[in-house]
Amino acid sequence: MQVQPLRWTGDSLELLDQRRLPREVIWVTCHTPREVEAAIRDMVVRGAPAIGVSAAFGLALAAMRGEDVKEAAELLRAARPTAVNLAWAIDRMLQRAAESGSSAAALQREAIAIMDEDLEGNRRLGRYGAELLGRSTTVLTHCNAGALATAGYGTALGVIRAAVESGRKIAVFADETRPYLQGARLTAWELQQEGIDVTLITDNMAGHFFQQGKFDAVIVGADRIAANGDTANKIGTYTVAVLAGAHGVPFYVAAPFSTVDLRCPDGSAIPIEERSAAEVTQMFGMPIAPEGIAVRHPAFDVTPARLITAIITDRGVIKPPFEEGLRAASRS
Amino acid sequence: MQVQPLRWTGDSLELLDQRRLPREVIWVTCHTPREVEAAIRDMVVRGAPAIGVSAAFGLALAAMRGEDVKEAAELLRAARPTAVNLAWAIDRMLQRAAESGSSAAALQREAIAIMDEDLEGNRRLGRYGAELLGRSTTVLTHCNAGALATAGYGTALGVIRAAVESGRKIAVFADETRPYLQGARLTAWELQQEGIDVTLITDNMAGHFFQQGKFDAVIVGADRIAANGDTANKIGTYTVAVLAGAHGVPFYVAAPFSTVDLRCPDGSAIPIEERSAAEVTQMFGMPIAPEGIAVRHPAFDVTPARLITAIITDRGVIKPPFEEGLRAASRS
Repeated sequence: MQVQPLRWTGDSLELLDQRRLPREVIWVTCHTPREVEAAIRDMVVRGAPAIGVSAAFGLALAAMRGEDVKEAAELLRAARPTAVNLAWAIDRMLQRAAESGSSAAALQREAIAIMDEDLEGNRRLGRYGAELLGRSTTVLTHCNAGALATAGYGTALGVIRAAVESGRKIAVFADETRPYLQGARLTAWELQQEGIDVTLITDNMAGHFFQQGKFDAVIVGADRIAANGDTANKIGTYTVAVLAGAHGVPFYVAAPFSTVDLRCPDGSAIPIEERSAAEVTQMFGMPIAPEGIAVRHPAFDVTPARLITAIITDRGVIKPPFEEGLRAASRS
Repeated sequence: MQVQPLRWTGDSLELLDQRRLPREVIWVTCHTPREVEAAIRDMVVRGAPAIGVSAAFGLALAAMRGEDVKEAAELLRAARPTAVNLAWAIDRMLQRAAESGSSAAALQREAIAIMDEDLEGNRRLGRYGAELLGRSTTVLTHCNAGALATAGYGTALGVIRAAVESGRKIAVFADETRPYLQGARLTAWELQQEGIDVTLITDNMAGHFFQQGKFDAVIVGADRIAANGDTANKIGTYTVAVLAGAHGVPFYVAAPFSTVDLRCPDGSAIPIEERSAAEVTQMFGMPIAPEGIAVRHPAFDVTPARLITAIITDRGVIKPPFEEGLRAASRS
C-alpha cells in the first residue's frame, strides 16, 4: 500500500486524520483556508513538508473561493511556528499570487507543483541517503518523518524505503515519541503496511540499545535547519543525537531543501512551539497524571550541528562544515 | 499526608494498588504468599525496597498459615528478577526461619524489622544526600524512587524530602517514565501531596532541559548496585546518565545498602527483566500502536559506574572508586 496523508480533489483538500491512526483510517475534508489552518493546528496533518503542502492548497482554496489570499496566508502562517516549510510554501504561493493576480487556476497549479516536487524530492533524497547505509543495517528513527509527514514516500523513512528498494537488509527501531506517539502510531503503522522490519520501543529505551551496540545509524527528519546546520526536530531528537554521539553512531538528518532556513543563523533563532499540558497528562481523554500538576511541553528541540554527521537533502548529501555546504546547495 | 505503599495488619499485608494511582486509591489485601507474589509480579507494589519488604511479609504469612517457608521463598524470589532487595529480604527471612524453626512470631517480627529499618534508613540517607544539594536546586528524577517504592519516605525522593525539610529551595522535574508512567502517576502525585514543587515532562524532553541548563543535579533510585558501582534501575536511567555526563551535571544514585550486591562483579551480571509487549502498545486497554507490531520491553537498564557521581546510602555517601567504598561500607 502506498501511504499518503493528503489528496487534492480539485475543489477540496482531503487529509488523513493522523490523530486517529492506527485505530481508524478517517479522512477529513477541508473546503476553506480556515479549515486547513485548524487541521494543521490540531495536528490532523503534521510533519513539516506535509503542512507546507497543505497550506499551499489552503491558499489555492482561498483564491478559488474569492477570499483574500494574503489574509489567508497570514492565518495559515501562524498555525504552527517551528516548521519553516509552512512559511516557505506560503511565500512561494504568495509570489505566484502576485504574479498571477491571485488566479485560482495558477494557485491550484502551484500547490500541485509543490506537492509533486516534494514527492519527487523525497525519492531523490532517499536514493542519496541509501548510499550511506551498509548492506545490512539497523536504523533508529524518532517521530515520523515518513510518507505521512510529507506528500508521500517520506524523508527519514524515504531513505529507509530507498535502501530496502536497493536490496539492502534494513531493520528499523522506532521510538514511540511521546506525547503524540507519532512513532508508535504512524511510523510503526506506515512501515508495517509495507512489510519493512520495524520494532517499537519507548523513547527511554533508546539508550539501552545504543549501549548494546544495536544501532548502525540514526535517521531523523527536520522541521527547520539553520544556516549553520543546527536542526529543529520533534522533541527528543536532541537526546537521541547525544546518545548517538556518545556511542559513535552516525546521526543523519533527512529533509527536503525547503526545510533549510538560511535567514536563520543558528538554532537559537528557531522558535520552539510550546503545546498544551493536556497533551502530556491525558490519553484517550483519561488522566495519566494527577490533576493540576505543572507540565512543560516543548514540541521540538534543537540538535546542534556538531552532533550531525550529514544532512541528506534532495540536492545531495551535505557534510560538515554545513554553513558552506548549505549555501552552495542553495545556489544549485 | 504521609505516603506509604503497604501496611501490615497483623494477619494480612495491605498494598496500595500502584497501577491505579493517581486516579483511584485502592488497597489490595494479601492473605497468602501466593497473593503477595502475584501482587509483586503484576506491579500492584513496585520499587526495589518495597518489593523486598512485601516479600518478607509474604514469608511471615507462610509461617502463620503453616505453609512451607522455603517453598514460599522460592515462589517469591522468582516474582521479579532485577531488584536484589527481593532476594536480600528473602534470604534474611530464611535465615531467621532456620534459627527459629519457622516460628510465625519470629518471622512476623523480622518482617516488621525489615520494614522499620528501611524507613529509618531512608530518612538517614535522605539527610546524607541533602548535604550534596545547594540552597536552591532543580533536580531531575526518573521513575519513582519515593515513599511508594519503599517502606516510606523514599530514596531519591527521600533526599528531596530531607532537602526540603532542611530549608533548601528544591524544584523537581519528573520524567513520566514510560511505559508504566511511574513518574507521571506516582512521583508527580507523591510530591504534589506534600506540596513539593514538581513539573512533569515526557522522558524525551529531558535532553532539551539539560541543554538549557535547567538541572543542577539528577537523583535516581536503584534496583541493584554491582560491586564496581554499575547500577541497574528503571529503563531510561542510562539515557539520563549519558545526558547528565554530557552536560556536566552530577548524577546521584540513592538506595539503601540492601540494594548493593557485592556478589555481582559488574553490570553485565545483572539480569534484566523483559516484560510484555502489551505494556508498551496499550493504554487503558486501548491500542496505541498497530496490531502485531514487534516490541522490545526491557524494564531496566544498567548505568556504568563511570557516569555516577556518588551513591547515597544509609551508610553514607560513597564516591568513586566505588568498589573500595562499597566494600568498606559493607563491613561498617
